[in-house]
Amino acid sequence: MTAYVDLMAFQRETEALAQVMGRLGWDQETMMPSGAAAQRAEEMAALEGVLHARRTDPRLGEWLAASEAGDETAGANLREIRRRYERNLRVPARLAAELARVTSRAQGIWAEARRNEDVAAFLPVLEEVVRLRREEGQAIANGGDVYDALLHDYEPGTSSAELTAMFGALRPRLVALRETIKAAPQVPEMQGSFPEEAQLVIANEVARAFGYDFARGRLDKAVHPFSSGSGLDVRITTRTNPTDPFNCIYSTIHEVGHATYEQGIDARHFLTPLGQGASMGVHESQSRIYENQLGRSRAFTGWLYGRMRQVFGDFGVPDEETFHRAVNRVSDGYVRTEADEVQYNLHVLLRFDLEQPLMRGDLQVADLEAAWNDRFRQDFGFALDRPSHGLLQDVHWSVGLFGYFPTYSLGNVYAGCLHKALRDAVPELDGDLARGDTSRAVGWLRENLQRHGGLREPRQTVATAVGFDPSEGPLLDYLEAKFGDLYGL
Amino acid sequence: MTAYVDLMAFQRETEALAQVMGRLGWDQETMMPSGAAAQRAEEMAALEGVLHARRTDPRLGEWLAASEAGDETAGANLREIRRRYERNLRVPARLAAELARVTSRAQGIWAEARRNEDVAAFLPVLEEVVRLRREEGQAIANGGDVYDALLHDYEPGTSSAELTAMFGALRPRLVALRETIKAAPQVPEMQGSFPEEAQLVIANEVARAFGYDFARGRLDKAVHPFSSGSGLDVRITTRTNPTDPFNCIYSTIHEVGHATYEQGIDARHFLTPLGQGASMGVHESQSRIYENQLGRSRAFTGWLYGRMRQVFGDFGVPDEETFHRAVNRVSDGYVRTEADEVQYNLHVLLRFDLEQPLMRGDLQVADLEAAWNDRFRQDFGFALDRPSHGLLQDVHWSVGLFGYFPTYSLGNVYAGCLHKALRDAVPELDGDLARGDTSRAVGWLRENLQRHGGLREPRQTVATAVGFDPSEGPLLDYLEAKFGDLYGL
Repeated sequence: MTAYVDLMAFQRETEALAQVMGRLGWDQETMMPSGAAAQRAEEMAALEGVLHARRTDPRLGEWLAASEAGDETAGANLREIRRRYERNLRVPARLAAELARVTSRAQGIWAEARRNEDVAAFLPVLEEVVRLRREEGQAIANGGDVYDALLHDYEPGTSSAELTAMFGALRPRLVALRETIKAAPQVPEMQGSFPEEAQLVIANEVARAFGYDFARGRLDKAVHPFSSGSGLDVRITTRTNPTDPFNCIYSTIHEVGHATYEQGIDARHFLTPLGQGASMGVHESQSRIYENQLGRSRAFTGWLYGRMRQVFGDFGVPDEETFHRAVNRVSDGYVRTEADEVQYNLHVLLRFDLEQPLMRGDLQVADLEAAWNDRFRQDFGFALDRPSHGLLQDVHWSVGLFGYFPTYSLGNVYAGCLHKALRDAVPELDGDLARGDTSRAVGWLRENLQRHGGLREPRQTVATAVGFDPSEGPLLDYLEAKFGDLYGL
Repeated sequence: MTAYVDLMAFQRETEALAQVMGRLGWDQETMMPSGAAAQRAEEMAALEGVLHARRTDPRLGEWLAASEAGDETAGANLREIRRRYERNLRVPARLAAELARVTSRAQGIWAEARRNEDVAAFLPVLEEVVRLRREEGQAIANGGDVYDALLHDYEPGTSSAELTAMFGALRPRLVALRETIKAAPQVPEMQGSFPEEAQLVIANEVARAFGYDFARGRLDKAVHPFSSGSGLDVRITTRTNPTDPFNCIYSTIHEVGHATYEQGIDARHFLTPLGQGASMGVHESQSRIYENQLGRSRAFTGWLYGRMRQVFGDFGVPDEETFHRAVNRVSDGYVRTEADEVQYNLHVLLRFDLEQPLMRGDLQVADLEAAWNDRFRQDFGFALDRPSHGLLQDVHWSVGLFGYFPTYSLGNVYAGCLHKALRDAVPELDGDLARGDTSRAVGWLRENLQRHGGLREPRQTVATAVGFDPSEGPLLDYLEAKFGDLYGL
């Protein structure tokens, strides 16, 4: 028992230091003076060095060998610590350092190339990143599939084969739904100007409405919305666009989904490996069900319309139904982060289907742009207009995030399953949402999923909550019903 | 040479981690959600553990033994690293941990006792803190004087004997000046209401006027004004009082003095032991000369009066001269941090003369309050009204800060010397300040003192800047001349 106690005391400090690292990231995006970047890089490198040393500390191996799982929680803690330790031991320090250096440089080159619409300027460093991440994946895979090994960093227990089957069922029905919608009469875009201060009033209000606890968090502005931290200090950011209040409102609800997940985890998992969301996919299921299935529902948008009328006055939308259609408007677009519920996953699947062969060596960096553009035309029905709308769109690959994209769509699939189970469990849901009251919905998610943190494997976390084996079916049924109704299909 | 290079690379990471620790402290006072305190304590304890391990790492001893000073900078770096390493090695880990635990508890007890005006509730834990710090001082002193050992943590190279001689010359002339002023016609207090937003406009403006670089810092509100950080990220805070704009304005100038000192250090000392102010006393010399000799001068208050009229409109002060007298008003008071230039050091000397026998075992905690109250009546001429204005006034002793108080007065003495030398070097000073232009004054301080950071021992730092051996004389001459003029003495 001493070994387990010692292990968990050591781990607790590591978790606390990881929280500090996360807060440096938050500070960098919200508070840091513009001239402090060079110092911040040294601070983060020094702290990363400390964390890496702790995560590969040989004592971990000794404690793990001598520990016995006394109960389910201890078993889960040992499972998580062992998984990460074995993974980290497999990555040579030289490779980890080179990856950190190259991705840091690549991110700057990517940003510059994107500004200049210059793919050629980005490809050489992308080539390096791909080579290093492939090497890392091979090291972690230990003879297994290189892409699956990378995927497991974000989604333990899932395989690319499983995702390929799931997404293979998703894609044709989404493409068909998109085509049917585009053939129907279109919804006009909302016009108007929405002062920033009033948008932030609404953002704070919806954050509270969705259960965000400001005593253990705060909401600031940043260039990109994000949620940061676990335990007692989970901070979120949002941004405003004067002509598009939905950007601020729905990115806030999305981040509140991530943040309340962290805030909702049982206190007994505090500063343990279980004290965070089960995986990226499960995390995304929370942000997406808050944002879409709840936040963009007819019931909730009815309440939101009323609040926006009070805050902005008459903004040119005559009634709740028109407002609901504006919130859920489907339109042609190139950008994943701006995509509607129907098209979002098509963007993700495109990346998933390109990054797998790239990691396995079956697709070369030189051929990547053509492959992207071909696939985009296939699924969206029109041609890309510029690289910043295509291959240069996302930061992910430049910083080596291969295996991360599919967790977005997996999260949407999980959200579909959770929504189905939630509807069954809370028949009063629409009545609640029409009053801006999410407490029963959030309460059900907290009780059945959020509070367990990383206790169970990701897929099992969702399966236990919903009571059935998760699949893409509920999401597709929901989308076809919702948009069939909205577009009179 | 390899040993020195390795040593400095290791030290650079330690300095970077110390910056992270400082930023956690800043965040706690400005941004942290109220419910995050328990987590923050664990984060700081974990990081403190990392720092302590690095500061007592046996490799430091090996590198130090194998390093040779190639030049003045290397010599100073080795001097500083050696001093701190030997000091840290002398403190048993058990004692350091107990001190951290007890002082953390004592601070809470002190705050509660202060609220309740209950000295008896504070004394038992103060007894513990005194015992532990005495034990620590004895360990560091290694046979030398226990108080001097503690003093050296804040002011290396200075002795209590030296300070006692200096302060012994200061005290009678300050008491006499105070008595003469109190016998003269008094200056009425400024009345009025000053909106917070406008105070912050002025605060930002004076920060810029005194050379604070916002590209490498930021100004936020906090309960207590402070400056935090070194190098490229030096942040300051201020506070506002609706009836007293001087609190906000002069605390901002004070903190800008600390912050621009850090910002003004040569880049070659970045993330080395020399990349920070030379000592607490030298630091305080910068904050005080900015605040007092420059900021409360007739020339600068003339400019400030004009700016305040523009921002606040007519606030009931008819002219520059009346404004200057209001800024420099001397009045009876109990509180060190609210004291004017004449009385401030009397508050400090009182503490210095009590904490020395306390540490040496010549004064018991049980007798401390009576000793404080007696001494207060002697120097200020009237009796204390309540414990929160006396023994319970400052947080310092509760957190174990013995040996810290004298650096405040030493800083004022140094500021007096620097002001004398500055006047000689920059004859146009009053003309500059009357236009709100501090650039020549700040430029002189930067060139002659600030940029060297910790290169020289503290006293030598000031001596080199002013060209003479620092003493209390210039401060006393300045105060007697200034207040003699103001009060028609």
